[in-house]
Parts: sequence; C-alpha cells; structure tokens
Amino acid sequence: MAITLAQSDTDFEQRFAAFLTTKREVSADVDAVVRDIIARVRAEGDAALIDYTRKFGGGDLAKLGIAVSAEDIAGAYAEADPATVEALKFARDRIRSHHERQKPQDERYTDPAGVELGSRWTAIEAVGLYVPGGTASYPSSVLMNAVPAKVAGVERIVMVVPAPHGVVNPLVLVAADISGVSEIYRVGGAQAIAALAYGTQTIKPVAKIVGPGNAYVAAAKRQVFGTVGIDMIAGPSEVLVVADGDNDPDWIAADLLAQAEHDVSAQSILITDDPAFGKAVERAVERQLRSLPRAETAAQSWRDFGAVILVATVEAAPPLVDRIAAEHVELAIEDAEGFLAKMRNAGAVFLGRHTPEVIGDYVGGSNHVLPTARSARFSSGLSVLDFVKRTSVLKLGPEQLRVLAPAAIALAQAEGLDAHGRSVAIRLNM
Amino acid sequence: MAITLAQSDTDFEQRFAAFLTTKREVSADVDAVVRDIIARVRAEGDAALIDYTRKFGGGDLAKLGIAVSAEDIAGAYAEADPATVEALKFARDRIRSHHERQKPQDERYTDPAGVELGSRWTAIEAVGLYVPGGTASYPSSVLMNAVPAKVAGVERIVMVVPAPHGVVNPLVLVAADISGVSEIYRVGGAQAIAALAYGTQTIKPVAKIVGPGNAYVAAAKRQVFGTVGIDMIAGPSEVLVVADGDNDPDWIAADLLAQAEHDVSAQSILITDDPAFGKAVERAVERQLRSLPRAETAAQSWRDFGAVILVATVEAAPPLVDRIAAEHVELAIEDAEGFLAKMRNAGAVFLGRHTPEVIGDYVGGSNHVLPTARSARFSSGLSVLDFVKRTSVLKLGPEQLRVLAPAAIALAQAEGLDAHGRSVAIRLNM
Repeated sequence: MAITLAQSDTDFEQRFAAFLTTKREVSADVDAVVRDIIARVRAEGDAALIDYTRKFGGGDLAKLGIAVSAEDIAGAYAEADPATVEALKFARDRIRSHHERQKPQDERYTDPAGVELGSRWTAIEAVGLYVPGGTASYPSSVLMNAVPAKVAGVERIVMVVPAPHGVVNPLVLVAADISGVSEIYRVGGAQAIAALAYGTQTIKPVAKIVGPGNAYVAAAKRQVFGTVGIDMIAGPSEVLVVADGDNDPDWIAADLLAQAEHDVSAQSILITDDPAFGKAVERAVERQLRSLPRAETAAQSWRDFGAVILVATVEAAPPLVDRIAAEHVELAIEDAEGFLAKMRNAGAVFLGRHTPEVIGDYVGGSNHVLPTARSARFSSGLSVLDFVKRTSVLKLGPEQLRVLAPAAIALAQAEGLDAHGRSVAIRLNM
Repeated sequence: MAITLAQSDTDFEQRFAAFLTTKREVSADVDAVVRDIIARVRAEGDAALIDYTRKFGGGDLAKLGIAVSAEDIAGAYAEADPATVEALKFARDRIRSHHERQKPQDERYTDPAGVELGSRWTAIEAVGLYVPGGTASYPSSVLMNAVPAKVAGVERIVMVVPAPHGVVNPLVLVAADISGVSEIYRVGGAQAIAALAYGTQTIKPVAKIVGPGNAYVAAAKRQVFGTVGIDMIAGPSEVLVVADGDNDPDWIAADLLAQAEHDVSAQSILITDDPAFGKAVERAVERQLRSLPRAETAAQSWRDFGAVILVATVEAAPPLVDRIAAEHVELAIEDAEGFLAKMRNAGAVFLGRHTPEVIGDYVGGSNHVLPTARSARFSSGLSVLDFVKRTSVLKLGPEQLRVLAPAAIALAQAEGLDAHGRSVAIRLNM
C-alpha cells in the first residue's frame, strides 16, 4: 500500500516535507575499493582490466580480447530479432531528429564600442559511454546516450559494457552500431571508468564519461571527475502523475507500475483532486500486479515509496509538483497546457491522456536520461549540450582598448592586481 | 625561471606529456571536518552559524546580525571610491548586454507524425553565490556570478561572504547591490555552504550554489552536490599566450605576469616560433617583476609553473594548444582568426595584439569564470545556461500513440519491462 497524503489534513505540510526528503537509496561506501581499482588500472593498464574482469565473472579477456570486433557485431545482428532491430532504428531516427534541433549556434557580433564578442561551440573530442551489464542492460539507453553525442559531432564514442561470461546483450551491440558508437570494449565496473579516464594500452582516454551504473561505477565517476567530465549521477527513476477523475483508473495504474517495475527504489506518485478516483487507481494497481512478471519489484516499490496525494482542486497542484520536481510528470487532465504554464520543475512533462511516460522512454524522440531525486530543480536531461562546450571569443583593436582601459585599470587597482593594470596600460603607453 | 620545451627536441613529446599532468595544487583532505560542520549546521541552524563564525574570526553575528542590512549597503556606497563604483557599473552593463544574448529560447514543434515536442527553459528558483573573504574578495567576481543569474531570471540570488571581524569589503557589497543580489549574509566557509543547501532559521535554502572558495568551501560544495546543484570546482588560473616575434616582449611579459600574480599555483605559458623573442620575453618578465607589488607570488608561479614552448612555425601550435586546453588563450599573432578556426579547446580566446586577457577579467562582457586545469576539453565557462534548466515536453493524441505504439511495445518486451508495454497497449485496447 502506498501512503496517502491529503492536502486538507492539518499535518499535511509536515508530512509532505518529510515525504520530500525520504531517502530511497542507501549508497554503499565503496570509495576505498574504487580508489584501489583506479590506481591499479592507471599503473598496470590492460593487465589490470583483464585481471579484474576475470575476477568479477566477465570472462577471459586475454582470450576473448578487450575490444568487441566487427565479427562480434555481425553476430549480434544475426542473433537479434529483426522486428526489434527495426524498432531500435525507428527510435534512433526519432531521437536523432529531435536532438538535431538542440545543436547550439555559434555567435559573433560587434557591440556599439566596436568590440567583437562571440561564443563558439565545439564538440568534445572523445566521449565514453558506460552501459550496465545484466538485467539493467537496456539497448534504449545506448541510443539515448550515443545519438546526442553523434549529433553533437563527437569523433570518438567509446562504449564499455561488462560481458558476464564474455557475453554482451546482442541488442546492446546493435543499438551501439546503429547510433554511431566507434569503439566497444567488454569491460565494466570501476575498472572500465578508470580505463576511459586514464587510458590503457588498448583503450585511449576520453574527455568525458556518461551513462548509468551501479555504486562502484558511480563512485568511480565521482573520483575521476576533473580529469574527465561526467554527466549527472542518476538515481532511481520516478514518475508523478497528475490525474483528474475523468481518467480510466487502469490507464493511470499501468503508468504508475511502469515506473515501479524498474527498481525497488523507483517511485510512483499520483496527485488527484478526486479521492474516489485515487482509491480506484490503488485497486487497479493491486489488480494489475497479479499479472505482472516483475510484480515483486513493482509491489515493493509501490509499497515503500508510492504515494497518492489528494488536493482540493487540480489548480492547487502546481506548487506541490514544483516541490517534488519529479523526473517524469504526466498531466492526465483537461487543461494540461494551462497546468504546464503554471509549473517549472520537471525533467520531462507528458501532456494529456494519450501520452504515457513510456513513450518518452523509447520512441518519443526526447531523451530519457533525466534528472532524478528532485534535481530537476536545478538541472536538465541529457542533450546535445552535454557533448559540446563553448569558448568565448573577444577581439579588440587599439580604439576599443582605449575605451575599455580606464574601467579595467580602475578595477584592477581596486583589487590590488597591479600586473593586471599594467597588461592593459602598457599597450596604451599609459 | 620558467621551463623551456622545444618541439624540435627528441624528448619533446615525453616532456610535454609530463608537463600536461603536472599537479599545481595539493588539495588538503578536509572532508571529515567539513562533514561535521555540515551536520551541525543542519541540526542547529543559526546557532551553529553564529558559533562557527565567532570561532573562525568572523565577528559576533549575534550582535552584528547574520544578514547584511540596507544600512550596511548604504554605508558601503559611502565608503567606496566613486570612480570605482562607476567602473563596476560600466562592467556590469557590458556583462549584462553580452549575457542577455545567451538566454535560450523555448521550442515547440509538431513532427511529421503529428507528435508535439518541445523544450521549455525555466530559471532556477533560488541560487546561492559564495564570495571568498580576505584578499581573494573580488568585486568583479560578484558581477560575473550574479549578473548571469539575474539575466536568467533567478528570483532569489543569495550571497554569502565571510566578514573578517565583521567587515565586508565595501566594493563587494556595492557589486552585489548593482547586480541584483537579493539577500546577503556575512557567513563563510563550509558552514555557509551548509546553510545555503539545507537552510537555517534566517537563511532559506537555495537550489544551486556557485562561486569560488578555499578547500573547505570546495569540499562542502562536493558534499552537498545532489541536494543542490553546484558549478564547477575552479582550480588555479592559467593563461596560454601564442605570440610570434612581431610582438613587444614587454606586452607579452605583462600578460604572463597578470596571470602569475593571482596565485603561486597560477600558470603562464608562452608558445612562440621565435626563440629569440622567447628569451626577450623571459628577460622582460624578470625586469617587470622588480616593480611589481605582488612580485613574490608572481615570481614563484613563473618559476614553478611557467613555460616557454618553442615551435618551428605558428601553424604547428594548434594541436599543442588543444592538449593544454587552457582557461585563457591569447593569440598575439598575425592570423589570429585562422588559428582560432584550427583549435577547439579553450575557456576563452583573446584575438590579436590589442586584446589582453585582463580585459576579459573585467569589462569585455564575457564571463571570467572559466574552466581550468584542462577541463576546457569538456566544459564551458559560466553563462546564463548555468542558471536555467530545460524540461522536455511531449504530447500525443490517440492517432500519434497508434503510430508510435508498436515500436515502443517491441522495445519494452525486448527489455523485459511488461508494465511498460501495458501502459501503452492499454490505451489502444491492444
């Protein structure tokens, strides 16, 4: 049973505030282990990769090879269901079309003083993409990470993926191949992150690492941050559905369970102005759980972190939505556009009764790598912007320098930085 | 004496690679101390702030008040040199004009399948700005951090600044006031970061914290990351000047020293194709050091981290420039534009002989908060984008859902996520 919070209750504010700060994940302290792994990969390179991989059940890379070969990829196509490959290509095309619109434009202009200013965007030269192995090895995530990098113009897109007993999910290889991944290595864990950050004999280093992973991978990403860039550290997924009583409770229950089945730490929240509808959704959840293969995971997530929040009117919901700042927000209400205009914090918003969040997971075209754990208050989903960087450009002639010099020199003096002042003054014989 | 590396030497690659990985900063391990400070501020709020501030020489906030008052700000204007205040306003206006062009535009479009997609940008609700106290208390940095936040539309811009013996640099207060800072508190250190992240009785929490600080502040920012957003962790500053023999050695020496005077860990690098010019610059550096108030700092920086890199031709320099990926790159050469087109990694580029980097520190209009320590390979300077976040928007009707459903369901099945498939299928009576 999920908890129910009614805005009309006198202790609502207190309970809601406590709900917001509920920790859904206990992060294991693996820092020391990870530090050792990184140090060893830096010192020993490939030999350390081979040894760790054997130790952690990833097969004998001395025989298999660290790199996935063209034959391996051809084999993956042969093994994969052709209809699924077509679905992946359909998704890839939609993701590409959408992300192509995100490419930032260079700018160069001359201001009234004659100073030329500009912003110049360039792709990051090489990016590493971590793909988890095992049950969390999702081909859709490969598309969501690799396609924006490709669109951005990244030249080397380097994928690492653990291969339990040497085997990589063939759909993951196909997804990588169709999204333009340039190199694939069958290594995982902190050792794979270390290899991407510092390089080994086989793996050349990259400048940034993206993609989800377990506690070891997350800790390794934090530790190599600075040497390379990293994306956000993703937490467990969450959905917030705002639904009035005019919805089919089964549709909304299905949406809540789609989130809950991901992980026992996932979170599904319903906000409704109709208590009877809320009850109906809860009953539908229980009913649907009976026929769900991942029922155990979904039931635990719903029991531990699920919530039904009752509001007097839908109009009262936006401030609560903003405080929850969910990764996914579904607006299954009449005036979804009007509601959107009144809210600000969400990774992605799905408008209307025919836009289940799952469409965004696969084929909507927008990215499914989104800020979790309330970080939508200050951050954005993955986009082409994560694979480019901006260089600012400034250009003055002697006249412009003469105009700007007095203020620059005054501020340098005020800050006690005489060499700063001199660097300007010397060019003007001041 | 700076080191000299000549590309024509047989061991150049080896020495250059070692040069690139030179650590310029030893980061003190203050994590445990910072963890305690944060825990205590979370538990005790204002009382902890008052106690830590008294202990660390920041005056008696129980008497002075934690908040800086309107009278304090009026007093700062009275104390400040009017010409410097005018220079700050001149800089503020130029920074504002440039950053206004960085505001991202919302997008909404309908694709050929009739699916509506969009990107919606909203300002972060509240941002904290850390300003160091003492000698590194730079009013120009207040402008560079606060103005972009204001332009982005951030409603609460909350500045914290340590006040040794209760006193804040009046120009820092004036800079905050003219750039639209909404609240100022005279607290610093890890305790100020904790207050911004978790809130106290006096200070309401923010969603993101920006601004430079010492090892304690940096460690605190890392520890609260996730609860709030943070900007980059800035390292010591650096400049890379590419100059041919047609420059006045004194101009280039002044530029190198402007960087070196910041900090003993700062780094100044000259790349030239003219060995005699390189020698002349080195002599000019020694000469200018004699009349520099911060000579001790600058001399130590130049001795420990300064470098002169000799190349056969200017055309050979871009690959080296990209590997150094400096915060600031000055191109004091004939064809600066042509060189710019051939390079990609730099925080900011200053084109031509009349654009000293110092102009960018104060009044150029672009931001002086830039990626250091080779992070320009994967990150950008501070901009309006750091104070907004993007929400993706998706909207389907029944027809669009019918078109996208088969691929979504196929991928959900391939990933073993049945509730995902159901959330789509149930809406189509499939």
